[in-house]
Amino acid sequence: MRQTFLAQLEELNNDVIKMGSILELSMNEMIGALYEKDIEKAKKIIDRDDEIDLLEQHIERECVNIIAKQQPLASDLRKITSIMKIITDIERIADQCADISEYIIKLSKYPQMEEPKSLELMIEAMKKMVINTIDSFVEADLEKAKAVIEADDEVDNDFEKITDELSLTMQNKPELVPQCVCYLMIIKYLERMADHATNIAEWITYIVTGDLTVG
Amino acid sequence: MRQTFLAQLEELNNDVIKMGSILELSMNEMIGALYEKDIEKAKKIIDRDDEIDLLEQHIERECVNIIAKQQPLASDLRKITSIMKIITDIERIADQCADISEYIIKLSKYPQMEEPKSLELMIEAMKKMVINTIDSFVEADLEKAKAVIEADDEVDNDFEKITDELSLTMQNKPELVPQCVCYLMIIKYLERMADHATNIAEWITYIVTGDLTVG
Repeated sequence: MRQTFLAQLEELNNDVIKMGSILELSMNEMIGALYEKDIEKAKKIIDRDDEIDLLEQHIERECVNIIAKQQPLASDLRKITSIMKIITDIERIADQCADISEYIIKLSKYPQMEEPKSLELMIEAMKKMVINTIDSFVEADLEKAKAVIEADDEVDNDFEKITDELSLTMQNKPELVPQCVCYLMIIKYLERMADHATNIAEWITYIVTGDLTVG
Repeated sequence: MRQTFLAQLEELNNDVIKMGSILELSMNEMIGALYEKDIEKAKKIIDRDDEIDLLEQHIERECVNIIAKQQPLASDLRKITSIMKIITDIERIADQCADISEYIIKLSKYPQMEEPKSLELMIEAMKKMVINTIDSFVEADLEKAKAVIEADDEVDNDFEKITDELSLTMQNKPELVPQCVCYLMIIKYLERMADHATNIAEWITYIVTGDLTVG
């Protein structure tokens, strides 16, 4: 019984890691598509969203099955219920890659404008958070999870800075309003991606310490 | 044992309903504050967010305890794990009430502009979705949950319409850009609130039917 349980728990773990890998792939392609205004790449990311949804449903069912059949206690149960939360956040981050891809397609229909100055910084900070949060799950690394939570302020600051920059651009060059609105929505999604990475890091903290302060 | 379990399940149910009531209160006050640009009301909503966070953590712990001690099977387990998802969505909707309140405070610092034309329609549609999704949980009403899921398109359409209207305003009256950017963020949050209401309706469908198609 314990043997089966450990095998099931390992399979569950591997499935979450697999979901994280697909997310990283989508995220990197989304970033590439955004820089290159690559419509084909953007469409591919939107299509891939189904794959993540199916994997989420599969893991969800696995979790319920393990709880029902193995009746795990204490720390194992905490891990499984946390995984049920983590996969929702992973799925949402993937959703946001697809949402941004829609705006990349929209953006490509207008004349190109110069990218907001801090966009690359914001993307790099957010990307690091998502990768580190997946890593901290794989390694059960509390320090790494803590660093993710702390990094969220940086992304929020970048968001404010870019919003101000885009507002100024729209005031000075009203003809660029449609493009700037696309960028406003894109940075809002980037900010949400960082928020979900923070949620995951908080769930990892809960798995390791049992301390529930997710909010 | 079964008696205790049923009592615990009822308490859990009541706590979710209580969380839903606090959310409705915050949502209604947020809508009032938005129409009246009432800074004091907006601040109160931001403060109340802690109350919802604490209730979420309490319910989360209740769920894990019930699963660990009562080892519920099949449909009961499905209900409890779904509640763990539902409370996350309720908490996020409350978060978004607080986020909108921040923009109400920001907005009040600029000269007033006329509200976007479809804003009231969008707010009403979103509000109905949130109230109906809580109701469909209380009543385990599958039809009501289905209606919530279907209503999401309406809110998405309102979002597109208002975005276009605000873009036009910014092009014609660049001096109104800061206010329009606040409204753009507000409608983005309203749209997210409707999305979370949809998620909850999908979890309710899962509780009642066992059909897992949440995406």
